[in-house]
Amino acid sequence: MKDITILRTAEQVGNLVNRWRQAGMRIGFVPTMGALHQGHLSLVSQALGEADRIIVSIFVNPTQFGQGEDLESYPNTFDEDLMKLEEAGAHCVFFPSVAEIYPDGFSTSVHVSGLTETLCGKYRPEHFDGVATVCAVLFGIVRPDIAVFGRKDAQQLAVIRRMVDDLRLGVLVLAGEIIREPDGLAMSSRNSYLSSEQRKQAAVVCIGLSRAAELVSEGERDAVRICDAVREVIAEAPLATIQYLELVDPDTMKPVEKLNTPGLLAVAVYFGQTRLIDNVILKP
Amino acid sequence: MKDITILRTAEQVGNLVNRWRQAGMRIGFVPTMGALHQGHLSLVSQALGEADRIIVSIFVNPTQFGQGEDLESYPNTFDEDLMKLEEAGAHCVFFPSVAEIYPDGFSTSVHVSGLTETLCGKYRPEHFDGVATVCAVLFGIVRPDIAVFGRKDAQQLAVIRRMVDDLRLGVLVLAGEIIREPDGLAMSSRNSYLSSEQRKQAAVVCIGLSRAAELVSEGERDAVRICDAVREVIAEAPLATIQYLELVDPDTMKPVEKLNTPGLLAVAVYFGQTRLIDNVILKP
Repeated sequence: MKDITILRTAEQVGNLVNRWRQAGMRIGFVPTMGALHQGHLSLVSQALGEADRIIVSIFVNPTQFGQGEDLESYPNTFDEDLMKLEEAGAHCVFFPSVAEIYPDGFSTSVHVSGLTETLCGKYRPEHFDGVATVCAVLFGIVRPDIAVFGRKDAQQLAVIRRMVDDLRLGVLVLAGEIIREPDGLAMSSRNSYLSSEQRKQAAVVCIGLSRAAELVSEGERDAVRICDAVREVIAEAPLATIQYLELVDPDTMKPVEKLNTPGLLAVAVYFGQTRLIDNVILKP
Repeated sequence: MKDITILRTAEQVGNLVNRWRQAGMRIGFVPTMGALHQGHLSLVSQALGEADRIIVSIFVNPTQFGQGEDLESYPNTFDEDLMKLEEAGAHCVFFPSVAEIYPDGFSTSVHVSGLTETLCGKYRPEHFDGVATVCAVLFGIVRPDIAVFGRKDAQQLAVIRRMVDDLRLGVLVLAGEIIREPDGLAMSSRNSYLSSEQRKQAAVVCIGLSRAAELVSEGERDAVRICDAVREVIAEAPLATIQYLELVDPDTMKPVEKLNTPGLLAVAVYFGQTRLIDNVILKP
């Protein structure tokens, strides 16, 4: 733990970033909730390719969790996270308290309409307000030149891009590819909730999405037929319950009936209490 | 019209501000809806005391007008505005189209809760979302070091300060004192709507607020008695209809019953279809 700086206040981050900027450096930012896996670390690598100094935030943002969701049990692996980040080449970890981000009297929220109404937004009604607001706050503190978000949270990526464009935040938002386990399961901090049997069966999600890509490469363009085929694959896992499975436009998140331009096939699946999401871009 | 730069796009403003900033200059910003009067110009003067270059925006923001409000008839005096701004020493006027601020697909809004629920916020339910959002966008475009808002719109000032603090926008928000006509009427672009008889009677608003200050200086601390005395003064104008008259905390906008710390006495009064607001800080 020699080379990585751990900061707990916005003021400290502001001072550090100002020094870096005065030295002509480009600032890269990777916001996370900790419990880091290869997916997060690939975002750090990507940021390193585009910026001179990388700040990673670790903040389990309470406002993006709904009632009954896993805020209290969200995995915390802080010491391991630090080691991984240092090894990945990050320069600074911003690890604020809840009161640092939301001081007494905090009253502002950022809402992105339209593209938050489908997919996860439909089932987690305040989630994206929490995400947009905390990212606006973090961008305000860090003032990065670039920020990297993973494509696994495809709707989140679209929301952040929309907010950054609309509010002229001046941050270049880059997308990191989904990183998968050997059996195809998309890496997620929440995979640690799975029992060994659930974990085994969870591979069907990715297999289902791959089946969709295969169908499209064979010429299929009909959203209903594509989704039905994916449902069939996922149904082979008795522990899987699909929450949603939808083909949407990757920018607007609006449902698509025929695949004439690239579409986002996005899915949320429960294994017991654990909710996993995954997606694939289907190119006709 | 030699010395003032008129810009219509965010990109042009960004380029100009970048040049100024690279030259080590501090940027001051005064957002307006045009139809400028001495109140606006005093904000420009104040900004000139704190910054090296002053940008004034003229943008009649549609999203802060409600149904049936005066968006369509809002006064437009652009050529005179330019002359006044040049004389006042402003360096740049940002005069964007609606599509420049809200391009196709714009979907983001900023909401400040709590302090938008009383006073104007109660009667203009979406007004402050429109104000907060457009100011966030304008701050994103201009990236000023300081911004100056008039105290006549006291609730707006509180909302902007809250948003700037919460979203870490890094803008120092300064307040300009209310500028009044010789008879005490607070300057407002909407005063031009008044008939000559309404205009004459409109002086009661300020006289009422002065009566409140007088009572407080005599030792009165009770909100109900203070407000009753103001109502009595305003009632002397037969064309005046009070929409609200309330003593609130100047930061939270929450109603105050006893004046133990400085309070904001804020009023909205209709003269015919014209709605005027005014306020005074009462110091016990």
